[in-house]
Amino acid sequence: MSETRIITISREFGSGGRTIGKMVADRLGLKYYDKELVQAIAEESGFDESYVEEAGEHAPGKSWLAFALGAQSAATPGKGLSMNDFLWTIQYRVINEIAEKEPCVIVGRCADYILRERSDCFDVFIHASTDKKAERIVRLYGESEAAPEKRLADKDKKRKVFYKHYTGREWGMSQNYHMSLDSGYLGIEECVRIIIDASGMKKSE
Amino acid sequence: MSETRIITISREFGSGGRTIGKMVADRLGLKYYDKELVQAIAEESGFDESYVEEAGEHAPGKSWLAFALGAQSAATPGKGLSMNDFLWTIQYRVINEIAEKEPCVIVGRCADYILRERSDCFDVFIHASTDKKAERIVRLYGESEAAPEKRLADKDKKRKVFYKHYTGREWGMSQNYHMSLDSGYLGIEECVRIIIDASGMKKSE
Repeated sequence: MSETRIITISREFGSGGRTIGKMVADRLGLKYYDKELVQAIAEESGFDESYVEEAGEHAPGKSWLAFALGAQSAATPGKGLSMNDFLWTIQYRVINEIAEKEPCVIVGRCADYILRERSDCFDVFIHASTDKKAERIVRLYGESEAAPEKRLADKDKKRKVFYKHYTGREWGMSQNYHMSLDSGYLGIEECVRIIIDASGMKKSE
Repeated sequence: MSETRIITISREFGSGGRTIGKMVADRLGLKYYDKELVQAIAEESGFDESYVEEAGEHAPGKSWLAFALGAQSAATPGKGLSMNDFLWTIQYRVINEIAEKEPCVIVGRCADYILRERSDCFDVFIHASTDKKAERIVRLYGESEAAPEKRLADKDKKRKVFYKHYTGREWGMSQNYHMSLDSGYLGIEECVRIIIDASGMKKSE
């Protein structure tokens, strides 16, 4: 195991993976990339942040398709490259640039795959039972018209399809990560502790 | 997270999961079930140990089928129950009995699934890259006619099909386990340490 400089965190919606990533970064004094990544990709691509947020991890739905078809001629840099592919290439480059720059924690956006050739990444997947995730999203984001179980399934299905499309891998297969943790069973705090411990990283003074 | 009494270890062939399970059991002073489980199932079923070893985790191949067809009338306790199903029911009962009896480590044999209703199990999956596993099986079991990559693929394919058939789950999906670890990346010793630490179990005096 080489010395870890980067922790990537992939996560099921509602598993608390984002919170865990932030806590790991805070305790190790590392730069944290989540929304910051969306901003960087939005800047580089010229797209709106909310659009990048939606399209960078999620498989295109109907509304995206309609949007893409309308905007394709203007936004596409090369013939035959779809807007989603264009965003992917930018996401790919931005994540590689970030990884070169400094030790950090990166949440989501297929960073585990994008940085797979590096030997200084520790790749973690966070998941939880549907019950635990449903309880969490209702507590954090409130009720909505759709049942929480449906909101969870919809969001993760999009991530799964996107991941498969761009990486050829099955999202959530333990073999894609160095460590996978059930945050509902272990608890958020315990996951943070286990990840920091296993990464071998220390807070830089 | 309830107090853990049982650690189940599922593992890819060649990942060192069996060694890890044994080390965890030794350090925690727990009873270890692997071959011992095969013996218990063999005793209860009346089948030969080597047969139980092969059939209890692996999807039936041709030789099994030939054997099963020949032996079915004598061995099958009820009409319509295949010999594989018969062994499964015994495996199911034996593993549940063991779990009731005392704290322990159980390696393989779908124990994660069989004990899924219990709240005192900590379920771990151990995997590694093909390179690391190939290096390990050649070191431990020697060369054979088939390339190590093929031996790995064959063995894990059987486990995968068996697991899917009896549990309805995808083998190796991180969601089936509380923790999944890449032993090739982390190292055997580090996996042992992480599992003991995360389980919250202490060596009983």
